[in-house]
Amino acid sequence: MTPDDFDTMRDVAHAMADAARGAILPHFRATGLTADNKDDAGYDPVTVADRAAEEAMRAILADARPDDAILGEEFGTRDGTSGLTWVLDPIDGTRGFVSGTPTWGVLIALADATGPVYGLIDQPYIGERFEGGGGIARMAGPMGARALRTRDTATLADATIFTTFPEVDTPADAAAFARVADRCRLTRYGMDCYAYALLAAGQVDLVIEAGLAAYDIQAPIAVIEAAGGIVTDWQGRPAHAGGTALAAATPDLHAAAMELLNRGEAAHQGG
Amino acid sequence: MTPDDFDTMRDVAHAMADAARGAILPHFRATGLTADNKDDAGYDPVTVADRAAEEAMRAILADARPDDAILGEEFGTRDGTSGLTWVLDPIDGTRGFVSGTPTWGVLIALADATGPVYGLIDQPYIGERFEGGGGIARMAGPMGARALRTRDTATLADATIFTTFPEVDTPADAAAFARVADRCRLTRYGMDCYAYALLAAGQVDLVIEAGLAAYDIQAPIAVIEAAGGIVTDWQGRPAHAGGTALAAATPDLHAAAMELLNRGEAAHQGG
Repeated sequence: MTPDDFDTMRDVAHAMADAARGAILPHFRATGLTADNKDDAGYDPVTVADRAAEEAMRAILADARPDDAILGEEFGTRDGTSGLTWVLDPIDGTRGFVSGTPTWGVLIALADATGPVYGLIDQPYIGERFEGGGGIARMAGPMGARALRTRDTATLADATIFTTFPEVDTPADAAAFARVADRCRLTRYGMDCYAYALLAAGQVDLVIEAGLAAYDIQAPIAVIEAAGGIVTDWQGRPAHAGGTALAAATPDLHAAAMELLNRGEAAHQGG
Repeated sequence: MTPDDFDTMRDVAHAMADAARGAILPHFRATGLTADNKDDAGYDPVTVADRAAEEAMRAILADARPDDAILGEEFGTRDGTSGLTWVLDPIDGTRGFVSGTPTWGVLIALADATGPVYGLIDQPYIGERFEGGGGIARMAGPMGARALRTRDTATLADATIFTTFPEVDTPADAAAFARVADRCRLTRYGMDCYAYALLAAGQVDLVIEAGLAAYDIQAPIAVIEAAGGIVTDWQGRPAHAGGTALAAATPDLHAAAMELLNRGEAAHQGG
């Protein structure tokens, strides 16, 4: 795509993110104070918000980009003819959403045959938006706009590592994560997609997850790579189809983490 | 204190929280993009921000409340003659702060001989403030102001539970936490003091922690109790001196969690 094409695509992506904010925020934290209201019986705010946001984003694409394909978490695939696909997760981090934590996000990616070329991570409640692709890597939030750049941490001993749940996905995945985390300076949990945004913003060094769908990871891949980081699966292959993800601020950290992820339990226990 | 006294105290607390925001925010996420700058060698943003915020708060108290005592995380105790103590934690959740997560907070409590009578939890980056005491329980944030009220969850099976680290404090503490968490619908980590604010806001049901100082817990106690919840230590005693904390949305949840916290490992493994 040309720079002008990217500008057009960015405008579409921002319009979608704005629409998603409007669709989601009325439902965020909506249950707590109305739990006694019988009218709320059966009201599932995250499902309602998820679907409303994806519908709002798809309506924009139907108008602005009718020839592009869509892969959405809620409403599946729409075929296209342009060779481009919009990959949408209206609320990534639904367990964070239902807990009231501002760590969920709207994920929007634009992919070609090679994978994501542009990504946007939006946190509507905070009013923060991270984007990367087409030569751009930047964020805007409560303290204004700034460039995104991963930091230059070279060793696990200096690294801050995130995953959303200590259980990761399977017990073997949890053990693999622990092998890496045990070498890191600081391990934190619970950030959902916000952890990827923090990696792009130079605040954390590693994010390791498993059990992902394509729409969970394509936007983070584009944002992090635009900011200078690396995202692959745990075997070093492209991660954009989903499964496992290893996101790192630097090649050195990526290599060190991947080696530990793939080292067997026995070797770890003997080491 | 009379309602007028509370109004005065609230004004002082809000002025302190405003001052803390101003002192802290220039240092939040300040390192990521400047890590290559040699001038930053030795710059520890959380320490600088922590001290600057407590100094700013103490300056306000020196002027407005010279007869009150102060217990601060950074600068210790100042004796007073009024029988009232301001309990200050300028940045609760320093590990969240250094990771860029907006889950740390400024904690301000006002205590008399019985414990905290007013508390304020402020998240400067999001621009959210939660307060409780003197008949008030409310928050203000990106979506405006609303009342705080804990939700009416009655059973662990319906509860969302938070703690900051899976390790809690000691291995025994982690095992005790797990006994409760295993019965809950959803367990989440990583929220620092923000989890207490979410409990007061009716978004989560239990927060269980250990290894706390008085300044970590006094503001959460006041906010949660004003919102209808309960905070004690793990034995059901007052928690305001620090140590363990069990914060619950309802008496039923509190009792069920406390029973499990104090059940031995052997009993748990046999059950």
